[in-house]
Amino acid sequence: MREIKLFMTDVDGVWTDGGMIYDEGTGNELKRFNVKDGVGVILLRSADIPTAILTGENTEIVARRARKLKIDNCFLGVKNKVAVAEKLLEQLGISWEETAFIGDEINDISIIKKVGLSACPSDAAGYVKDIVDVVLTKKGGEGAFKEFVEFYFMERGELDQVVDKVVEEMNV
Amino acid sequence: MREIKLFMTDVDGVWTDGGMIYDEGTGNELKRFNVKDGVGVILLRSADIPTAILTGENTEIVARRARKLKIDNCFLGVKNKVAVAEKLLEQLGISWEETAFIGDEINDISIIKKVGLSACPSDAAGYVKDIVDVVLTKKGGEGAFKEFVEFYFMERGELDQVVDKVVEEMNV
Amino acid sequence: MREIKLFMTDVDGVWTDGGMIYDEGTGNELKRFNVKDGVGVILLRSADIPTAILTGENTEIVARRARKLKIDNCFLGVKNKVAVAEKLLEQLGISWEETAFIGDEINDISIIKKVGLSACPSDAAGYVKDIVDVVLTKKGGEGAFKEFVEFYFMERGELDQVVDKVVEEMNV
Amino acid sequence: MREIKLFMTDVDGVWTDGGMIYDEGTGNELKRFNVKDGVGVILLRSADIPTAILTGENTEIVARRARKLKIDNCFLGVKNKVAVAEKLLEQLGISWEETAFIGDEINDISIIKKVGLSACPSDAAGYVKDIVDVVLTKKGGEGAFKEFVEFYFMERGELDQVVDKVVEEMNV
Repeated sequence: MREIKLFMTDVDGVWTDGGMIYDEGTGNELKRFNVKDGVGVILLRSADIPTAILTGENTEIVARRARKLKIDNCFLGVKNKVAVAEKLLEQLGISWEETAFIGDEINDISIIKKVGLSACPSDAAGYVKDIVDVVLTKKGGEGAFKEFVEFYFMERGELDQVVDKVVEEMNV
Repeated sequence: MREIKLFMTDVDGVWTDGGMIYDEGTGNELKRFNVKDGVGVILLRSADIPTAILTGENTEIVARRARKLKIDNCFLGVKNKVAVAEKLLEQLGISWEETAFIGDEINDISIIKKVGLSACPSDAAGYVKDIVDVVLTKKGGEGAFKEFVEFYFMERGELDQVVDKVVEEMNV
Repeated sequence: MREIKLFMTDVDGVWTDGGMIYDEGTGNELKRFNVKDGVGVILLRSADIPTAILTGENTEIVARRARKLKIDNCFLGVKNKVAVAEKLLEQLGISWEETAFIGDEINDISIIKKVGLSACPSDAAGYVKDIVDVVLTKKGGEGAFKEFVEFYFMERGELDQVVDKVVEEMNV
Repeated sequence: MREIKLFMTDVDGVWTDGGMIYDEGTGNELKRFNVKDGVGVILLRSADIPTAILTGENTEIVARRARKLKIDNCFLGVKNKVAVAEKLLEQLGISWEETAFIGDEINDISIIKKVGLSACPSDAAGYVKDIVDVVLTKKGGEGAFKEFVEFYFMERGELDQVVDKVVEEMNV
């Protein structure tokens, strides 16, 4: 498994089960994230790998989740994910080959074709499953992002070491 | 597979898992939609096929979801779906044979018997499953509407072409 | 199958999946009902069989759901379900033998032992599954109450007739 | 099965399915608990075994759930679960051997290694499943805590007796 220096992720259908909850009275939208994916971000950070969010939707909910998880690179309302990622890679000095991406739908197809390592949840669209490197066992919202992170460290033979490091950091 | 010129859909139990979430304090109702069904609407639009919503419930939530997805024909609080659809078909100059419908419950039975192509989610009522053309593999709220749309394009041998067109439109 | 003149039902774990959603900011509780169970109430009403709600919880949410479904007998905050049901049966002139009940937990055990026909969702407690007449295939919140109603009419050979009657009433 | 004098539990991913629901408009967080786990607390109390909550998150939601279930020992925002539990055990005069714990994630690993009886939901992290005494059949949010409680009483041959006692107490 090649070394990855940046994990990028879609939100709806990956960090969520695709659910968009609407409140009749307030007109608010609600989204359901999963604490497990937050652990994925922590595992990556412990190995000095940043996480970036790229979503077509434009809601404060995602920005809030990013702040909670201390994710600096959070791009909302993105029409062209390849173009936005290209700028980020340039800025960070990372190549497409050193970048991983997880997405589930039609607007993720172009970027999936560019990155060095791609994955999708088990309930992604058929035309996405056909082109990713890894179809995960978890559905969106069940911790598919974290499964992707664990898969990467496991393939590299580094999972035990990363987990041990996080456990140690927690017990200080 | 015959050509379909209009897709009509029920909401509760199709675009949702049947869930009606009540808030104790505000008295508001909430519904959970799925981003995947929104992609179904986009695929249809790309092929110049409009989507219409027909629901027995009367909540602003559904109207809001329709606006988000730019669906013009959204009928709320419908008692007699056949009667409402009949007017719409006349207005659009489309026959019942050229119309598709997806529903899951007892108030969808009459209209299912009229359309040229009918479907239901895998968790629809038994007496609905018995009469539709296609029982989908997805449950309501899991993207059953989108599965119906994909099924149609796949049967017509047009899915790859429609997906490619949408991907191109997104990358402009 | 004996004739049943009253269907009684628990709420949490039967009409819901047991979920109690708490809102941090408002302190409100939310519950998720299923539109399918509402159809169960409609099928029963069409056959002149009333539905009664008996729940240990005391929230306005359940009262609101009962009003929406036009259920007159809705008992909240019930400690002793047998005692409350006994009064209702007396008032309606119905025997325990002519009464059905569906529940899922420890506070439903005593009343389950009294009624003529009892059921529970597939994810009910083991000690409830052991004593009911019918363990349904659906979980709480998936339409288990409606499955119970359909089971009753099917066993009586009356389901088609009841469904046809409701469809006719809707198309007026 | 040794005698347990205290059950301790994590919250996110155990009492919930890991879901963290964010409200766009209010900025509130919502969590979905399960009424079944509340029955687990009741069963334990009936056998004079207290329940304690230990969670890394710090939200009023969990405090409210604890109050509803009359749980006195509810520790929020815990970084080091072993340290907090150690103080509680000292205060209650209970040894690690007489303590049970259920958790699902990386921040539960250290405490799992200390207690006399440990468990995790079926969808816990792989590195947690590898070290607990019991991997339950239920996922987080489906009543995994209650399954753990039932497992304990069943192994001790005391489940029927505990259930009967609670049923009696309810029918007074």
